Formats: sequence, C-alpha cells, structure tokens
Amino acid sequence: MPTEKNKKQKLSVGWIGAGRMGYEMAGRLAKGGADVLIWNRTRAKAEPLSKYGAKVADDVSELAARDIVFCMVATWKDVKEVITNLLKNPRARPKMVIECSSISLEGSAELRAMLGKHKIQYLAAPVSGNAKVIKAGRLSFVCSGPEKAFSEALPFLKMIAPSASYVGDGELARIVKICHNVFLGVVTQSLAEITLLAQKAGVPRHAFLEFMNQSVMGSTFSRYKTPAFVNLDFKVTFTPHLLRKDMDLGLDAARTFEVPMPLASATRDLIQAMIGRGWSEQDFATLLLQQAQASGVTLKSENVEVGDGLS
Amino acid sequence: MPTEKNKKQKLSVGWIGAGRMGYEMAGRLAKGGADVLIWNRTRAKAEPLSKYGAKVADDVSELAARDIVFCMVATWKDVKEVITNLLKNPRARPKMVIECSSISLEGSAELRAMLGKHKIQYLAAPVSGNAKVIKAGRLSFVCSGPEKAFSEALPFLKMIAPSASYVGDGELARIVKICHNVFLGVVTQSLAEITLLAQKAGVPRHAFLEFMNQSVMGSTFSRYKTPAFVNLDFKVTFTPHLLRKDMDLGLDAARTFEVPMPLASATRDLIQAMIGRGWSEQDFATLLLQQAQASGVTLKSENVEVGDGLS
Amino acid sequence: MPTEKNKKQKLSVGWIGAGRMGYEMAGRLAKGGADVLIWNRTRAKAEPLSKYGAKVADDVSELAARDIVFCMVATWKDVKEVITNLLKNPRARPKMVIECSSISLEGSAELRAMLGKHKIQYLAAPVSGNAKVIKAGRLSFVCSGPEKAFSEALPFLKMIAPSASYVGDGELARIVKICHNVFLGVVTQSLAEITLLAQKAGVPRHAFLEFMNQSVMGSTFSRYKTPAFVNLDFKVTFTPHLLRKDMDLGLDAARTFEVPMPLASATRDLIQAMIGRGWSEQDFATLLLQQAQASGVTLKSENVEVGDGLS
Amino acid sequence: MPTEKNKKQKLSVGWIGAGRMGYEMAGRLAKGGADVLIWNRTRAKAEPLSKYGAKVADDVSELAARDIVFCMVATWKDVKEVITNLLKNPRARPKMVIECSSISLEGSAELRAMLGKHKIQYLAAPVSGNAKVIKAGRLSFVCSGPEKAFSEALPFLKMIAPSASYVGDGELARIVKICHNVFLGVVTQSLAEITLLAQKAGVPRHAFLEFMNQSVMGSTFSRYKTPAFVNLDFKVTFTPHLLRKDMDLGLDAARTFEVPMPLASATRDLIQAMIGRGWSEQDFATLLLQQAQASGVTLKSENVEVGDGLS
Repeated sequence: MPTEKNKKQKLSVGWIGAGRMGYEMAGRLAKGGADVLIWNRTRAKAEPLSKYGAKVADDVSELAARDIVFCMVATWKDVKEVITNLLKNPRARPKMVIECSSISLEGSAELRAMLGKHKIQYLAAPVSGNAKVIKAGRLSFVCSGPEKAFSEALPFLKMIAPSASYVGDGELARIVKICHNVFLGVVTQSLAEITLLAQKAGVPRHAFLEFMNQSVMGSTFSRYKTPAFVNLDFKVTFTPHLLRKDMDLGLDAARTFEVPMPLASATRDLIQAMIGRGWSEQDFATLLLQQAQASGVTLKSENVEVGDGLS
Repeated sequence: MPTEKNKKQKLSVGWIGAGRMGYEMAGRLAKGGADVLIWNRTRAKAEPLSKYGAKVADDVSELAARDIVFCMVATWKDVKEVITNLLKNPRARPKMVIECSSISLEGSAELRAMLGKHKIQYLAAPVSGNAKVIKAGRLSFVCSGPEKAFSEALPFLKMIAPSASYVGDGELARIVKICHNVFLGVVTQSLAEITLLAQKAGVPRHAFLEFMNQSVMGSTFSRYKTPAFVNLDFKVTFTPHLLRKDMDLGLDAARTFEVPMPLASATRDLIQAMIGRGWSEQDFATLLLQQAQASGVTLKSENVEVGDGLS
Repeated sequence: MPTEKNKKQKLSVGWIGAGRMGYEMAGRLAKGGADVLIWNRTRAKAEPLSKYGAKVADDVSELAARDIVFCMVATWKDVKEVITNLLKNPRARPKMVIECSSISLEGSAELRAMLGKHKIQYLAAPVSGNAKVIKAGRLSFVCSGPEKAFSEALPFLKMIAPSASYVGDGELARIVKICHNVFLGVVTQSLAEITLLAQKAGVPRHAFLEFMNQSVMGSTFSRYKTPAFVNLDFKVTFTPHLLRKDMDLGLDAARTFEVPMPLASATRDLIQAMIGRGWSEQDFATLLLQQAQASGVTLKSENVEVGDGLS
Repeated sequence: MPTEKNKKQKLSVGWIGAGRMGYEMAGRLAKGGADVLIWNRTRAKAEPLSKYGAKVADDVSELAARDIVFCMVATWKDVKEVITNLLKNPRARPKMVIECSSISLEGSAELRAMLGKHKIQYLAAPVSGNAKVIKAGRLSFVCSGPEKAFSEALPFLKMIAPSASYVGDGELARIVKICHNVFLGVVTQSLAEITLLAQKAGVPRHAFLEFMNQSVMGSTFSRYKTPAFVNLDFKVTFTPHLLRKDMDLGLDAARTFEVPMPLASATRDLIQAMIGRGWSEQDFATLLLQQAQASGVTLKSENVEVGDGLS
C-alpha cells in the first residue's frame, strides 16, 4: 500500500542552491531521508551535505532526471539562468519545480510559462524565516500553483518546515510573501517607536522587549530581533534596500488592487529616509537608530545577554 | 527551611474584582493552592470560585487582614473607591497591594501615594491578554515598583501567568502597558491593510491568515484575532474608544518624552475616523471593515472554522 | 529696429486644441494681436475665435507652415496623434512646438525625440490654472527645453499668461508640474482637515475660509475652491482619478530620485480611499466630504454667496 | 453727523506692547491718525513712535482711561500680568480690550472672565503675518467675541490691517488661528518635500519656487519663505518649539471635536523629529534641511537674490 512514507521514498529530489538558506533546507531534506541530489555554483559549499546522505552534482542539468527540483538562489536572474540550464538536458525533465527564492510576481509568471511549455508542474513556494529559523525547525512555506502539485510536494515541504500553507492558483504565494514583508517593515518601525518611548521613560530595552516577547504581541520575529535592538548588533540579515524593494512591490500591488495602505506607505518613506541618511549597509533593524536620532537620543548597547528564541 | 512553596502557603491573599478577567485570575490562584479571600461588588459573581477553595467576603474591608491584596476592576474610579474602602479597616492593613487594572500613570502614582502613607508596598502589575488568554494559561504580567515587592509577589504571579516581567521603579509598568497597546493598534491596522490586499489579489482571508499565523510574524494576538477577520465576528473584546484612549495616552507620553511616533499617530487617526464613521460599539477589529470600505469592498464572512490558538 | 512687438508680428502661430482651456488660451493670443491659425477636431468649437481675428484650419497639417505651433489637448495619445499628423505635411515644418497639455515625462521625452528628428525646437510648457484662471488673466506657464526657444516663445507666452518660468533643459517642466499637483493634493486635504475642525468648533465654513483666503496662507487656489467647500458644489474641474494619477507620478519620481514624501504618500492614500468609498465622478474637492464622514458629520451647503477670487 | 471718521477720532486707544509686531501695529494706528497712548515694559522701545504722534505711558495703568486697549505681548503669562495691572487703576476702565497675542483658548477664556467682571468688552483678535507683513500692509485679523464690539473696533483694525474677519462668539478666533498655524506647518513640510524632489530632478530651488509662487498655489507665505528655502537663511521668525506647540493645540482640539487629522499628525511628528535631531534654535523652515538629510542631500545656498513678495 502506497503510504505517505513510501511516496516520499519513491520520488527523487534535486536541489539547486547551497547558500545560507538553501544549505539548511536541503540538509533537513537529506536528514529526513529524502533522496537528494544537490547542485551549487560553488560545489564545495554543497559537499558537507553528503554527510547526511545527499549526493552532489557537477552540473545543474543532472538534476533534470529528478522528480521534484527545488530552487533556492538569490535573484530572479539566477533563477532564470539555472532553470534554463536545467531545461537544456535533452533526455530528462523533472515532473515538478518548486521555487522558493524571493522573486517578483512577474518573474514567477515568466517561470510558470517557461516550465509550462515542457509540461512541468510549478509550485511558487517562498518562505518566512532565515537560516537560523530553518535550523530551529520553525520555517513556514506559502505555496501557490496547481493544488495537486502542492499535495504531492507536501511530504517534502514538511521535512523542511513544520508548516506549509496553500493559498491558491498561480503566483498568489508571491503576493502573500510581499504582504508578509510589508508587515515585517511596519512591525519593526512600530517596535522601534515604542522601544524608544519606553527607554526614554526609563525602561531598559531588554526589560521592555522581554515583556513584549512574552506578551500576546510577541512573535518569533520580535524575539529574534531582540538582540539587535538590545545590543545594537546590526549584522545584516536583510538590507534596507531589499526591504524597500518589497515595500514598493507591496505598494505597487496596492495600486493595482486599489487598496490604500497608510501604514505601509508611511513605513516605506521612513525606510527611504533611513537609506538617505546613510544607514544602508547594515540590517534594516537600524530603523531603531533612525528612531533614536529623531528622538534626540544616542543609543548604546545594553550588553545584556538576551535570547533570540531560536537557539 | 522556608522554601518558596512554604512562603506561598504562609502568605494570605485578598482579591478584589470578579469580572471576566478577575474571575479567571483569582480562579487560577485558588486552584494553585493559594489561600484566597475574594470580594466583588456583586457577590454572586464571585461565589463559583468557592469550588476551588476560595472564600468570599461580604465587605472589601475584610481583605485588609490579608498579606497581599490584588485589585482587578474596571476603571481608576473603581480602583480608588475600593482601595479607599479597604483602608477604612482600622484594625488591619495588607502588606502589599498589586494593582492589575488598566489605569493611567497619574492614577497609579496617586494610588502609590495613598498606600505609601500606610507603609503598604505597591506593585503596578498590568497584564497582556484577555479572559480566554488567562484560561489558556498564556497571560503575562509587567510589573513595576519596589523590586523586593516583586520578588515576594512572584510566586503568586506565576500561579496566574507563566510570565511576569519586572521593568523598574514607580509606574514604569503603566508606560510599558501603554506601549503594548499602541503596538496592538498598529499591528491590527497593518494586518487589516495586508489582509485586504491579499484578498483583492485573490487569497481567501483564512488562507492568508493561516500562513501569517504560522510565519515568524505570527503572534498569540494575530491568532486570536483570526476568527474576527475571517468570519467577521466583532463581539467586543476591546472597544474603539478604549483603544483610542490608550493610543492617546501613548501619544501624550510621546510628547512628554519627545519621541515622534509616526505609525502610532497615523493609527490613532484611523481609529478616530472609524469611530466617526460609526464603528464604535463593536470590537476595535472593525478596523478591517473600515479598510474594506476604503478599498471599495464589502466583506462577507468566509464561514470557515478557524482556531483562535487558545482553545 | 526689431522691437519685441515686431518679432511677435513676424512669427506666425498655429494652435491645436479648442477645448475649455485651449479655447481661452488661443483667444488671448488672437486678442493680443498674434497671427493665429487654429485647428480643432470639432471645427465648430474653434470658429467663434474668428471674431478675434484667428483663422480656422480644416486640417492639422495646415499648421505645419506656421513658425510656432502650440498644442493643448487632453492626453498623450491625442498629442501623439496630432503631432504625427502635423509632421505628415511634406512641404513645411514649424520651427517650434510648444506642448502645454498635462503629459508624462516619458511622453514628453518621446515627443522631443519625434520633433528632434525634424530639427523642430520643442518647449515643454504645462500650466497652472483652469479655464476660469486663464480668463481672469492669472495663468502661469512652467517651461523647459532649449533656453533659446524659451526666449523666442516668451512674447507669445506673455500674451496668454502674465507669468512664464523657465526651469531648465529637457522635460524638467513636467516634473515641476507634477510637484505642483502633488502640492495641490496635500493643500486640499489639509484645508479639508482644518475646515472640519473649525466647523465642529463652531466656525461657519465661509467665515473660516474668508479669513484663510485673506491671510498670508491664502492662494488663488484656496480662493477658487472656496465655493466648493462652502456650498458643496463639486462640479468636476479635476477628477479624483486624475489627481491620483499625478500623485502616483510624483511618488514614482520620488522613488527614482530617492526623496521620501510622507505627506504626499498619506494624501495619495486618502485619495485612493475616497475613490474606494465611491467619490470618483465629482471634483477631487470631495476630499472634504470624506473628511466630514471620518469626523462623524454630514455636511450641508451653507448657501452663502462667496467669491472665487477670479470673476 | 457722526461719520466713521469722526467715530475713530472720538475713541481713544491704548496700546500695550512694542515688540517687533506691536511696534509696527501701533505705528500704523498712529500714522493713521488715531489717538494712541502706548506702554511697553522697556519704554525706550516705544519712544520712536512719538514721531507719528503717539504718546508714551510710564505705567500700564494709565491706559485704563482709554476707550479701547489693544494688547500684543509674548505669552499668556505676560497678557495676564499686564491686564491685571491695567485693572488696578481704581478710577478708570477701558470700554474694550482687543487681545492680539497668540494665546490658548483657555487663556483667552480666562481673560474674558477677568474682563467680564468689570463689564469690559473683549475681542479675541489674533493675526496672520509677521512684522514685515504688517509693514507691507498685508496683515489680517481674525476676531471673535460680541459682534457689536467687532463693529466698533473695525475702523481701528482696518487702520492696522486691510482685512479683519469676524468668525463668531467667544474664543472661536483662537481656534481659527490654531487651524491657520496647523496649515502653515503642513504647507511648509509639503513645500520642503516637493522642493527637494524638483531639486534632485535638476530644477534649481529658485526657479522652482518662482514658478510655484506665481502659480495658483502661491501665497504671501510661500513668497516670503522663498529666500529661506533658496539661500538657507534660517534666521528665526517662528521657532520649531512654537510651531510644535501650535500643532499640539490643533491636535488637542482635534481630539476634543473628534476630527482625525492625518496630515497634521504626520507633520507634527516631523517637527518633533526635527527638534530631536537638533534643529531647534533656527526658523522652523529648517524642515527643508531635515527633508534634505532624509533625501541624502546636503543643501547649499543658491546665492540668488529672490524677493520675499513684501519689500
């Protein structure tokens, strides 16, 4: 009887991309027992995954013989290039491609058309979380495309992340990811505002955020941004330019669908102002520094050990 | 040897207020084994707590003989009245009062002065969560006042809520609670914006919010507001007027401490506009309906069973 | 000696477009003594101008023999069509085209390229004001393109409007016009906010606006919008959709040039919300009605005769 | 027959305050032929007015014998003190006091009560304009109080300013003045936004503002702020702190009357941020510098002679 476990074992997986996130995701698949063949531009970065049973390909076209091929690279340009190369293999075609990078609606639609010509099913499957979140087993997928493809992919998605939501046809998952990132921008700015208010009133940032994190308003995100807010470690996880790009994608969609978004617009302009003021190379959480400047305060690290809720 | 457990048993507790929240909180104390004497204006409302071992007082002044008296009533006017009556007992004084209602900084400071005259320790201890959150064992306290008082109170706080944060002297906990509620307002408006955008793009609200709740941005709050957003059940948990009041308290503090709060200000005006448009008697989550109106959409319940993350 | 008057008499003028604004502008040229040949799609609309000495053309290509051709039509599509037809005349070319319609930067640049191929000088010359403003002799031009072309055109511009500003090369005048319209949107929303505040405090709108108009803040614009605000006459002069389009052009330019524009963004969203709520067919001054709704007030006409500062 | 001219000559005027604005206002009265007795804390400042026929008092109580006493001082504290001293004269009382300083509604109401006890009529009469505006004969009054008092005062108001509006009973003029200043804040921020956008697009500030000033959007205010925007002369006319105070008075009134004011709120926070960033001692027009900073630009004076529309 074909149980879900059997199905997982029957289908073979190709994985494109062993960057910070792709490495962790492919690692979870391999550790979970999937038959994974991974390809990465710099082969050396993928090799450590062989200790979990993954095989490493020399050329991306080798992955064409796999049933399902995941793609997790940096930009739409990279996606287009690797998928084009994948499709050059004249002897084989995957049955399904699952694209997890953060690409635009337009890119996603172009990819769907490219794959459609070869009758390859396509699932748009962006994620919420960073490399640490994956490691902590807390990633979530949002997926769109044919519902049948989602069902088939689900056992593999669940090996990578505890949660995978299906939101509908076509590129809808891309819109949802954009909404998610718009919310992330607004939430960060609002946290910056209230953290400064609490601090100027006399509450240390770590004490304030400890409470917020434990309150009904606390989120995985608020917890993993806490070290940045408390100890001013702004090592980049997501740049101001990337966040601005996603806010703009959100506002573009808001124009298309005629939805006024006053908080998103205000936040977008604050991110633009932050970039204008020169905070552009560190993490976007420097919104806190801009807020401090506007409040007449120079922040100092509190040098308090605070958890990020992940490790 | 006086262990923490012994200490809990030695100290007696008085509880003022058996409203929706006070009832649940006192119930958790009683079930946890504390020696609780409860008083409520309408005695009948408190009586069911006797099944957990709580005693019920006829007059609030009886509670003066208790070591620690908690107060959880509706408004500062109520707080002032019951504490005044408590202090009328000429033969006894509690050692500590823990005030959990949502009162202003000024009220809190006046209460501190009232109690200080009688050498009664005072802990300001507002909470994050509603009655359902308490029942689900997910409440959190934020406390300020003498740190010694907090340490003494902690075993009792922990019987009620898994988490209790100490943020400093005086009325600081009140500021933190105000910041928390400002954030709640901003987060709700932002969720309304992105939910409408996702919906107009074609994503059902329940699918969108399911993903958001499971993402790194999800919170206890976003989960328990989901049924309201999906099925348009706006039975009041917190009125627009009360939220506006807390936003105004936040903006007043922002004036005092010279912190510009662009997102809080924008949200405040949207709440005011919602009230002006007549959405004032239901839950403040009708921000979603105002957002829908501004987006040219008439919402319908999706009639989908969605969890609130609590029950 | 070639005086300015002589120069004016030597150069012949073609005029394309006898709509509400074009008719008034061409009329001022003709009355001022210029040698004007006018063409309009519906010839009958142009004919009354013959009483001021203007000649009326049957075909737009007849205007190719004129030295300077003005164009004042509705949309970029119209501009492109008429200029294409103008250039079809194989025997003649104007020396200069002055384009006054509200077209985009991109359209303006495309037009410059089209004309450049034929060595025709091109002045981008949008205006501030409506038909009544022209009649009242209060129009103003903002021009960009070759400075020499501007100098040559100036005597004619001054016959139409008391003021013509030169702001630089290329399509810069288009950006300035967009900035002007962004300001117009912000000013109208702010006037709506304070008019409602004054009214709810007890000041009739006509008394409030009379003072504002006479104050240092008063403008030709605030004066000519006063009848709309006082007597709720929202006969369209500029639709909400057109204003939204210009706000979006402004915000697009703000993205390109990396200028955060918080007030423009907030106003843009309020215009979007007004459209979403169904105020889309009347004048954009219905921003006042949206503001009233948000303030819980149903406005009534004050039925007070108030001037518009023009007639 | 008592003509208006006769009436003017019959009534005697007292004037309190020879600061920058009071000096110019009293000067216009004296030059206009009114019988003026002026008092100023520092007598020397008032003395030059004697060349226009004004008399100078040693003590404010001497003004009690005058029919109408104008008051133009710095703060409500000063108003209260001088009027208290004025009322100490046991032998005389003016028939009317006209108070022109920028004081709050509450101060104005308290003054009305003080004067009411002595049956002295009281006109609240704040103004729009600064000392240069007065000199240029372009001031405007907005008045509230008994309509009869306004009629009686009108000939004198008209000697000072070409325009005087009556807006109703009580302290309504104070609300109108606050609305005026809220608008001034919003307009200045919007001008800063579009000026930066135009500049980054390539339009010099002086060329841009020349057009705006001549356009239908131009105002006396936009014209007299032009030298500041072009040549970065931020010699204080109105401080950021004073503007913030008026924005806060406006937002307080907006709370009272339940009027959401999104643009006013956003502007208020930008003024607060400007103060937080250290622009607090110069003119509030440094909003332009903050806007430049947020746009990644360091402004330089254009060193272009531009008019202020007044001199």
